[in-house]
Amino acid sequence: MEFMERRILQEGEVREGNVLKVGSFLNHQLDIGLLEEVGEAFYEKYRGAGITKVLTIEASGIAIACLTAQKFGVPVVFAKKSKSRNLDDDVYTAEVYSYTHQTTNRVTLSKRFLTSADNVLIVDDFLANGKAMEGLLDVCSQAGASVAGIGICIEKGFQPGGARLRSKGYDVTSLAIVESMENGNIVFRK
Amino acid sequence: MEFMERRILQEGEVREGNVLKVGSFLNHQLDIGLLEEVGEAFYEKYRGAGITKVLTIEASGIAIACLTAQKFGVPVVFAKKSKSRNLDDDVYTAEVYSYTHQTTNRVTLSKRFLTSADNVLIVDDFLANGKAMEGLLDVCSQAGASVAGIGICIEKGFQPGGARLRSKGYDVTSLAIVESMENGNIVFRK
Repeated sequence: MEFMERRILQEGEVREGNVLKVGSFLNHQLDIGLLEEVGEAFYEKYRGAGITKVLTIEASGIAIACLTAQKFGVPVVFAKKSKSRNLDDDVYTAEVYSYTHQTTNRVTLSKRFLTSADNVLIVDDFLANGKAMEGLLDVCSQAGASVAGIGICIEKGFQPGGARLRSKGYDVTSLAIVESMENGNIVFRK
Repeated sequence: MEFMERRILQEGEVREGNVLKVGSFLNHQLDIGLLEEVGEAFYEKYRGAGITKVLTIEASGIAIACLTAQKFGVPVVFAKKSKSRNLDDDVYTAEVYSYTHQTTNRVTLSKRFLTSADNVLIVDDFLANGKAMEGLLDVCSQAGASVAGIGICIEKGFQPGGARLRSKGYDVTSLAIVESMENGNIVFRK
C-alpha cells in the first residue's frame, strides 16, 4: 500500500456528503515529511519531462507545490481566487464553480508568470469534480503553456474529474484514488 | 545588505497607496531558493527556542511556513479565512480587518491543531498594520499556546504593526524593514 493511502486510513475522517477530512496532515495542519514524500513521488514520475514551473491554486495547493518544486529546482506559481470585478489587464482569468462552497470564484494569474515558454506540472490536494483543475488548464491554454502532467494527492474516483481529464489526454498522477467511502469505509482503486 | 533587502530592490515594485509588489518571488510566483533562505534565517534565530509548530495564515504565508518548518522538523498549521457564519464548535475564531480589501474576515483554526502544549513561531510575508497577526495572536491566546517569536519577510516600518507588537513584548524578526518608499525610492531601516 502506498504512503498516501496508509495515511488516509490512519487519519482521514469520512463525513456526510462524501467529505473526506485530512486536515491533520494535508490541508490545515501540514506534515512536512509527508509533503516531501509527495514531492519525491511527483519528481520520480516527471523528472525527465522538462518541467519549468509547478502550478497550483491557493490555498492548500501551495504547500504541495512548494515541496514538489523544491525537488525540481523550479519556481511555484499559484493562481488566486478572487471575487473582484476590477482586475488588471495583465492577468489571465477563469471562472471556477465550487461544489463545496456553492459559489463561482474567479481564478486569476498574472500573465508575467506563465507564458508559452512554460511546461508545467499542475498539483493540488484533491481532485473530485475537477472544476478548479479545469480553471487552471484554461489559464494554461490562455498562456499557451504546455501541461506535462497533473499531480494529485487524493482523487475521489467516484466523482467525474479524474476520468474527464484522462479522457482529454492529460497525464493524471494520483497518489491515492478513493473508489468509495460508504459508511465510513474507505476503499482505494487498485 | 541582507538577502531579502537585495531582492526587494531588484524586483519589488512600488505602487500607489504604499503598495509594494513582490509577486515575482514571494506571494504569487514563489522562488523556492529564496524561501529556503528565509527558513534558514528564522531557524538560526529560533533554533534553541523549542518550537513545536510553525503557524501562519492562508494563503501567502503557507509557502514561508512550509520552508521554515522543514528546517525545524515540525508541522505547519495555517489559519483559514472564512466569511461563513456556520462554524464548528471545534474551531478558534478571531475577527481580522483587512485594509487591503476593506473587509472583515473571520480567521479560524481547528482546536485540534493548537493547544497549550504548543510553542509556536508565527510567520507571514508582510507585516504592516498587523491586523492579521493580531488575529493569529488572539487564536494562540485562546489555545493557551506560547508564542516564541514572529518571523516576517517584509515589515512596513512606516505602518504601526511592528512597533505595536514589539511594545507588547513580542520578539519580531523582520528580514527587511521598509522605512519609506516615497516616489518609488525604497529605503530600509538600518
